[in-house]
Amino acid sequence: MKESKALKTAAKPKRPKIVVIGGGTGSYNVLFGLKRYDVDLTAVVSMMDSGGSTGRLRDEFGFLPPGDVRRCLAALSRDTGLFRSLFEYRFSKGLGLNGHSFGNLFLTVLRDVTGSDADAIKEAGKFLNIQGNVLPVTIANCQLGAILENGQTVVGEKNISVPKHDPSLKIRKLFAVPGVRIYKEAERSILEADKIIIGPGDLYTSILSNIIVGGVKQAIHKSPARKIYVCNIMTKKGETSGFGAADHVRELEKYLGKGAVTSVVCNDKLPATAILKRYAAKGADFVKPDTKDPRVIKADLLRGIDLARHDPDKLARVLIRL
Amino acid sequence: MKESKALKTAAKPKRPKIVVIGGGTGSYNVLFGLKRYDVDLTAVVSMMDSGGSTGRLRDEFGFLPPGDVRRCLAALSRDTGLFRSLFEYRFSKGLGLNGHSFGNLFLTVLRDVTGSDADAIKEAGKFLNIQGNVLPVTIANCQLGAILENGQTVVGEKNISVPKHDPSLKIRKLFAVPGVRIYKEAERSILEADKIIIGPGDLYTSILSNIIVGGVKQAIHKSPARKIYVCNIMTKKGETSGFGAADHVRELEKYLGKGAVTSVVCNDKLPATAILKRYAAKGADFVKPDTKDPRVIKADLLRGIDLARHDPDKLARVLIRL
Repeated sequence: MKESKALKTAAKPKRPKIVVIGGGTGSYNVLFGLKRYDVDLTAVVSMMDSGGSTGRLRDEFGFLPPGDVRRCLAALSRDTGLFRSLFEYRFSKGLGLNGHSFGNLFLTVLRDVTGSDADAIKEAGKFLNIQGNVLPVTIANCQLGAILENGQTVVGEKNISVPKHDPSLKIRKLFAVPGVRIYKEAERSILEADKIIIGPGDLYTSILSNIIVGGVKQAIHKSPARKIYVCNIMTKKGETSGFGAADHVRELEKYLGKGAVTSVVCNDKLPATAILKRYAAKGADFVKPDTKDPRVIKADLLRGIDLARHDPDKLARVLIRL
Repeated sequence: MKESKALKTAAKPKRPKIVVIGGGTGSYNVLFGLKRYDVDLTAVVSMMDSGGSTGRLRDEFGFLPPGDVRRCLAALSRDTGLFRSLFEYRFSKGLGLNGHSFGNLFLTVLRDVTGSDADAIKEAGKFLNIQGNVLPVTIANCQLGAILENGQTVVGEKNISVPKHDPSLKIRKLFAVPGVRIYKEAERSILEADKIIIGPGDLYTSILSNIIVGGVKQAIHKSPARKIYVCNIMTKKGETSGFGAADHVRELEKYLGKGAVTSVVCNDKLPATAILKRYAAKGADFVKPDTKDPRVIKADLLRGIDLARHDPDKLARVLIRL
């Protein structure tokens, strides 16, 4: 909280505009850490999730997937009371309710009542008293697709994220079906940003699923912002098996353009052996910070050695200083 | 709104305390009409509903039935905006969601998060910015039961309200299984009331389902309040077939005690023939104000002749004057 105070009392001609691109737990941690600072935060969120509670609602109602939006809204919420608890509640029983997130239902009903995905997200933000903005990367309905190294095509985010195919096959090309365009407000926020933070998050299903949306790459290039990629702590089966930090950056820049990223933030603290074993059983390994790329900043970003997750505060301290 | 203004500008030593006993659409109309006046409103609500969205949630979660509470909260809400619309939203698709009221889900989640039925209702009231109070008649879980005139026993509110038995059979005795006690706060509000309004609503499943709760009859008797019964406009198949106004009063006082009611408010305006035909097809007829009981006040209470429902404003005007 020291930084927060310092920033607040200093003469400030303008609060820095930070755009966080991603979805899922990764963006949650970045946003949760950064909201303690006096910055203008915008989350640009992937819209291709098709699994779990989100996938069911998407299939049945035909609206955009609420899950990643819900997590970013919760991260930015100033509310620490009852409404936040309701929003993050998950049904553990009830025919047809079991497994649903109440926040997802809330967003789905808001979407139906307001008639617009963007309005639903804005109104939910008011209920949660969020600090900042959450914007869908696109408001067009589409699915994520991947061509694997053996030529096989897989469609649907959930089928890439939880592969039914041989998970050792690398992803050769990621695409959206149908091709969709960036949401205007998301484009504007990227163009006006002082800092763009990409990741952490599942490389193909949470990060690149944003980059492949038409206009995103161009907006990031045009933006005068410093562009920071936060590399994952662990690899993911079926997406990044065997990847080191350099592989993550190479794959990101395959879609974003070589040299597009100004800095790469990389954890160099190894989690406890027991944790590594648990991840190994799910086909996930530590991402080695094995790179001499001068853009890479290495730091201990671990939330204790018993969790292979980013610590929101440690990560935010690095991101604010950059 | 004239009355409202007059009451507000007059010197007021004390806002009259009005308790409305019932549940369902009847209580909604009474509360909606009365909330325009400067009165202290409390709804005491039946807790034996077991049908529809409410019944499914009750079966699956084991909490008290949210449906009647939801309607009373909506009636008393000062909010005319988005939250009220969400609260009254009903899913028309979605496996397992279809038919559910979002307000019922909201109350169910609130109940689970707060751990108490009474607290869940209070917190929902805050979200809806209600004018007044909504109290469950009991916080003990029970079912409604009826012994029919042929000796057959029927258990479950939904089986009485939508009879699977011969609907021409009269209800000889109504009871709660297990026997339950009145909720303390509901008891206090009845004892402190200046006016108690009973009904309108389905005689057995919305009105008497309150009166048979242990302690309710005694509290009503002890209360110095003026006690007003609002008679239904139409009879209900399986409950009050063939009943006139006098039959309604007689049956109510069978449970409440003879002479317990100070006044009876009764509609004397016949709805349009087309409406009467539509109701007749569902086994419901006009309740004839066929009584010389000196307690009966007759008035046109119809919301237009094309609806066999109470007009909230007309009804409130009569109830305020009494």
